[in-house]
Amino acid sequence: MSARQMHLRVFVLGTGNHIAGWRMPDAYDSFQSLPVIQHIARIAERGCFDLLFLGDGLQAGANDHPSFTARFEPITMLAALAATTTHLGLGATASTSYNEPFNVARYFASLDHLSGGRAAWNAVTSSNPRAAPNFGRDHPPHAERYRVAEEFVDVVLGLWDCWEDGAIVADRATGRYIDAAKVHRLDHEGTYFRVQGPLNIGRCPQGRPIVLQAGSSEPGLDLAARTADVVFSVVQDLDEAKAAYAALKSRLPRFGRRAEDVAVLPGVMPILGRTRQEARDVLDRLQSFVTSTNAASLLSSRLGIDVSGFAPEDKVPDLPLPDTSHGFARAMLSKARREGMTWRDLHNLTGAARGHWVIAGTAADIADTLQEWFEGGAADGFNILPAWFPGAFDGFVDEVVPELQRRGLFRRNYTATTLRGHLGLDMPRSRYG
Amino acid sequence: MSARQMHLRVFVLGTGNHIAGWRMPDAYDSFQSLPVIQHIARIAERGCFDLLFLGDGLQAGANDHPSFTARFEPITMLAALAATTTHLGLGATASTSYNEPFNVARYFASLDHLSGGRAAWNAVTSSNPRAAPNFGRDHPPHAERYRVAEEFVDVVLGLWDCWEDGAIVADRATGRYIDAAKVHRLDHEGTYFRVQGPLNIGRCPQGRPIVLQAGSSEPGLDLAARTADVVFSVVQDLDEAKAAYAALKSRLPRFGRRAEDVAVLPGVMPILGRTRQEARDVLDRLQSFVTSTNAASLLSSRLGIDVSGFAPEDKVPDLPLPDTSHGFARAMLSKARREGMTWRDLHNLTGAARGHWVIAGTAADIADTLQEWFEGGAADGFNILPAWFPGAFDGFVDEVVPELQRRGLFRRNYTATTLRGHLGLDMPRSRYG
Repeated sequence: MSARQMHLRVFVLGTGNHIAGWRMPDAYDSFQSLPVIQHIARIAERGCFDLLFLGDGLQAGANDHPSFTARFEPITMLAALAATTTHLGLGATASTSYNEPFNVARYFASLDHLSGGRAAWNAVTSSNPRAAPNFGRDHPPHAERYRVAEEFVDVVLGLWDCWEDGAIVADRATGRYIDAAKVHRLDHEGTYFRVQGPLNIGRCPQGRPIVLQAGSSEPGLDLAARTADVVFSVVQDLDEAKAAYAALKSRLPRFGRRAEDVAVLPGVMPILGRTRQEARDVLDRLQSFVTSTNAASLLSSRLGIDVSGFAPEDKVPDLPLPDTSHGFARAMLSKARREGMTWRDLHNLTGAARGHWVIAGTAADIADTLQEWFEGGAADGFNILPAWFPGAFDGFVDEVVPELQRRGLFRRNYTATTLRGHLGLDMPRSRYG
Repeated sequence: MSARQMHLRVFVLGTGNHIAGWRMPDAYDSFQSLPVIQHIARIAERGCFDLLFLGDGLQAGANDHPSFTARFEPITMLAALAATTTHLGLGATASTSYNEPFNVARYFASLDHLSGGRAAWNAVTSSNPRAAPNFGRDHPPHAERYRVAEEFVDVVLGLWDCWEDGAIVADRATGRYIDAAKVHRLDHEGTYFRVQGPLNIGRCPQGRPIVLQAGSSEPGLDLAARTADVVFSVVQDLDEAKAAYAALKSRLPRFGRRAEDVAVLPGVMPILGRTRQEARDVLDRLQSFVTSTNAASLLSSRLGIDVSGFAPEDKVPDLPLPDTSHGFARAMLSKARREGMTWRDLHNLTGAARGHWVIAGTAADIADTLQEWFEGGAADGFNILPAWFPGAFDGFVDEVVPELQRRGLFRRNYTATTLRGHLGLDMPRSRYG
């Protein structure tokens, strides 16, 4: 039995992570529905998950993944879940390119108070250039987005430190409400932002909300190594996962941090069957639901180039990718070239899990593989991407999680009430305290 | 019995609307607490209120109203309440000066979905110049803030129209998820904003969330007359209330709207006693809690000038007010001059209800006055500002509301499930539909 414990996050897209998961017969009937997401959250708490996560995007496209086209705004959705869950960490994406740091710091501080210390902010630079016309500006190039993000994250972390513990006195007898000596201005003057502070909300139950990141480029890894508590990697196999794990962990000492300060969670879409054949049949069924239109559109968006002109049966050629493509788009493209895939193969791979690793098998098979990765220097836990909801998630929680628990790899009950507690991270002190 | 029915909104500041309300013995013990606000929301639903409202500000000041210094971010708080209330309208402030219209449109559309059609956006221009240094810019002058706001509100209303009803098809058999013919780009190109759209969330349960406004300046009244569904007025007596009511209603035809399209709700702080003397004693007790530091600070912020140099016993002189002062600050100052008030008197008046009307009396007295205003062309209902929570709000709901119900002036039960329904407003059609 291993003392080290896995961390599990569920990645929630209401229609399922598989682009056509909503077509499964037992998928939910409606997706823009609070009860649906609340139901998913209850499954996650039943499975003792560390964290439920909602991604985000700032644009709609008719042929995109259905949950990218019409979706809840994630900060409001998490706040609703804060009121109806008790232990589950609650993470959401907010862009560093199309927001004000003062506003983002407030949203997540408020979420942390509302949830009693379960909030997490996924800082992203918004890779999709189609966001820009909704904000009346040009999409900044990759390098600039990361320079902005570095400063943006620093401002948010700084704003979260402005209030020390005990600053709110609320002494009825004297009428003294605030101890002004424990409330500090940030006075940040940088290249992209000038932010005076303080924030107008008291210190968070977690000290600071948890910071999530998923960048895989060099600047993305640097930002994550310097500021993140949890990092998500997008990988296709064990070797890639080990490389991504090492790339992040080896960078930590440069920023005065230890390996255990940051959890690295590769994404995985588990496709479960009572037998291996049944699992393969489920995957085949899901893939049969993919239409060429939506797969090509998703692939174009991921790669940052229009691939609708290629025929499905053509082999994927060696293509130059633009600056706006996802880091893992490069990995997918090189895998496709290496394995001699056609565009249809690549559509299917992307449509399934947007470039994440897909594993089909029995509960024991899946637990074996997760254990191998966890013990083999590839993962501190996993970012679980159910292909559809609720069926695929119920299956994971009811069959794979107990298998991991029997092996001593995962908690049987929550032992903390905050996300920081689930992650085993120390409470940070305010820089002013 | 009157067929016309009052609309009631409760203005929630956790520590109470009175600057020192939190010092009352039965006030809550802690204020940055979800259960406290949930409790207030339950009282409001018990009283069949149309709407619970959270104001906002984008700065903290140690001597400000305690609930302005450390507060929940209101959009997240409303989302949490959406999950734990069933009928109550949920309104919050979001600034048109320090936000992106695409983001604001999403927050309130998402809230409308989360709450099943109960969201309301209070569009404010942020009068307090102390917000500006938190966003690295200069505070725009009043006239420019309103020019920005006019365009900002138009963009938000336009984004809410981008999706027609029925745009989400989600046909499992064919794999068609979106009917792209029912999703429209906004393509707004204005002076301050360029926003392409569409929004990435389907049409709201209310068609569009309800729009609230409270401006009392000429540009504020024009914006409200053109775009608001509910307007809050800040007045000190019946004559002022009638003038404010007429100023708004008379402006509506200019924008092709009818008097019944917009509800005007004056703010009132009811101070309840079993006798008139008991009510006056409660008010005296509240005023005895006001410290000179916090009253002067609040007054300085409202007037937009530093008044800390004046002695409390000095008469209020005739002072020029800057562009940044609240519209109703002018009314308070002229009242103080008219009535020969000292600075202490004006501190007390401001500290009590920030310039709103305060009425102390028995439940019957208060109901009499509300009825007189409602039937006398001064109000379509009221914005209730309990001096502290929960006691002052419980008192209003348990004693004044039943009195209004007996008189046939206010609903005994909810007859609709959306805020639009409570207000008796029609469902808007999309401009594209």
